[in-house]
Amino acid sequence: VEAARARVATTLGIRPEGVVFTSSGTESNNLAILGYVRSLAARGRRCEDMTVLTTAIEHSSTLETMNELRRLGVMVEVLPVTHEGIVTAATLKAALTQGTVLVTLAYANSEVGTVQAVHALARTLRAFERSSPGTRIALHVDAAQAPLWLPCDLPRLDADLLSLDGGKCGGPKGSGVIAFRKDVEISPILFGGGQEGGKRPGTENVAAIVGIAEALSLAQASYEERARKVSRVRDAAIARLCAALPEAVLNGPMGEERLANNINLSLPGLDTEYAVVVLDTAGIAASTKSACAGAGGGESAVVLTLSGDAARSRSTLRLTLGEETSLTDFDRVGAVLQEFCIRQSGLTQ
Amino acid sequence: VEAARARVATTLGIRPEGVVFTSSGTESNNLAILGYVRSLAARGRRCEDMTVLTTAIEHSSTLETMNELRRLGVMVEVLPVTHEGIVTAATLKAALTQGTVLVTLAYANSEVGTVQAVHALARTLRAFERSSPGTRIALHVDAAQAPLWLPCDLPRLDADLLSLDGGKCGGPKGSGVIAFRKDVEISPILFGGGQEGGKRPGTENVAAIVGIAEALSLAQASYEERARKVSRVRDAAIARLCAALPEAVLNGPMGEERLANNINLSLPGLDTEYAVVVLDTAGIAASTKSACAGAGGGESAVVLTLSGDAARSRSTLRLTLGEETSLTDFDRVGAVLQEFCIRQSGLTQ
Repeated sequence: VEAARARVATTLGIRPEGVVFTSSGTESNNLAILGYVRSLAARGRRCEDMTVLTTAIEHSSTLETMNELRRLGVMVEVLPVTHEGIVTAATLKAALTQGTVLVTLAYANSEVGTVQAVHALARTLRAFERSSPGTRIALHVDAAQAPLWLPCDLPRLDADLLSLDGGKCGGPKGSGVIAFRKDVEISPILFGGGQEGGKRPGTENVAAIVGIAEALSLAQASYEERARKVSRVRDAAIARLCAALPEAVLNGPMGEERLANNINLSLPGLDTEYAVVVLDTAGIAASTKSACAGAGGGESAVVLTLSGDAARSRSTLRLTLGEETSLTDFDRVGAVLQEFCIRQSGLTQ
Repeated sequence: VEAARARVATTLGIRPEGVVFTSSGTESNNLAILGYVRSLAARGRRCEDMTVLTTAIEHSSTLETMNELRRLGVMVEVLPVTHEGIVTAATLKAALTQGTVLVTLAYANSEVGTVQAVHALARTLRAFERSSPGTRIALHVDAAQAPLWLPCDLPRLDADLLSLDGGKCGGPKGSGVIAFRKDVEISPILFGGGQEGGKRPGTENVAAIVGIAEALSLAQASYEERARKVSRVRDAAIARLCAALPEAVLNGPMGEERLANNINLSLPGLDTEYAVVVLDTAGIAASTKSACAGAGGGESAVVLTLSGDAARSRSTLRLTLGEETSLTDFDRVGAVLQEFCIRQSGLTQ
């Protein structure tokens, strides 16, 4: 366990004491956000005097934790995002006040792949802290989607807290990490033994801990090359799919601002939940949303926030690439979807 | 996941909807206790109007959760136990009031092996409920130590909530279950997706879930025969160890009231933490306390509560048996400890 902790610490550029193993990215987000607020409350700051900033396109483990913060009396303010899902430094700057204690956002959006300019946002926070003596604003980054594709070094990002999920980067399900820098305190949100520096009780799940440490280390060792390679396939695949499907609209940004392995299209007017079933029959795994957002049915809150378009948010299709996914794979995806669109359009005419 | 849930439900005598998978026994205890209190609070009951009963010899995941309840404003009352660690029905009856909402205790104590008469305690609660219309007192049983040795059927025990830990009954670490009956509500204590019926968010750890279901099923299929066989070895081993070590005192009860696989001795005046190291060198795994109670150092709060004897609580030695542990194994334990006692007594004289 301690060797795994040291390995994660080296990978993320922090001390081993700043690494706490959890059971998932969801638990990590809960512990980062509630644990940070609880630590401030334990030092005498009233919940009513704290403001936490976030966005409307976060993962459900952040959005639902925001509702818990509201129940505790904390002010939660939702930052606007661009049509591509980006939080700009200007937007963040305008929202900061003396009461702001925490900013929490995803490094890369799990549905539409938008990558935030974390370091630029951190710079905005630091500038505000300097201009308002006595303020301290922690930056929490939900990096669950990031390790295989983006740098996760905390000092380099200038983030205070980072959440990670083993199952999202080639490690075992049931493993998570919360990483935090030297001057950051978190209080536990589950209660029991003194494991994990008193921050997360329960018998250590050694296999999961070793697994996530190995996965993070391998993911970060070669993320640049991997991202370069896969984003090239992604861009060609998007072009091919849009050519094959005239009704398709891309959700989220293009280029560097998009997660290397993410494609998210809307097929307005069509039933993409049924498309997922048809693709599955053809051996192609796709989804409409995040599993944690109830992938089964309903609209995508993320795409609705970005586009304001109900038809678009009800017809999302998320396709994610692995290192081995080839453009040839997308010929098959395109063919299946093309037939699906023709049939469905025929049915509705 | 759903097949595993059905299997656990059958094993525990409840509906599948009453089975929630967690990451550990610690998380299960937190969710059972805090989740039950939160569900009452969500339905309008003030924390200040709730009393929870427990004992001073619970596992740290219960004791620390009691401290969280106190912070929330809930009244926590500590039931006295006998010198053997037993909560009597009379003691429980005397403590019940209109404000009592929950009684939480371990089925079998993790340090000294005391088994509570859960069904008799449940009968006391039901009688109180009948005599005081409008009261509803849930019984939560921490059954982490139980599945291999004791019946865990909820209707048979007449318990409302039961916590289980996979790693304690032959299943994987990082797996837990909370089981509850039809008329019991719990609110989540971690926030995110709608997994596990909205009671525990996060991507399902399928391997851990299948593992704990298999372990619980196998454990409960043959617990009676296993307990009969192992308790016979236990009793002979206790006799042999006490004969070899005149200074030894047994902590906890004998016979049916003791967990079949538990031996807990005190060697007053001796450094049993060092004894654990000496035993380890001889290939024998022992402990002084529960790992979650900081097995490293200090006194046993459980033995101090039972005996009121500081020397006894500072010199505990816990030896647990498996199905394959033989009396011959204890000849070796006895010999190593005998030599240890002679040397240590020599040193202190």
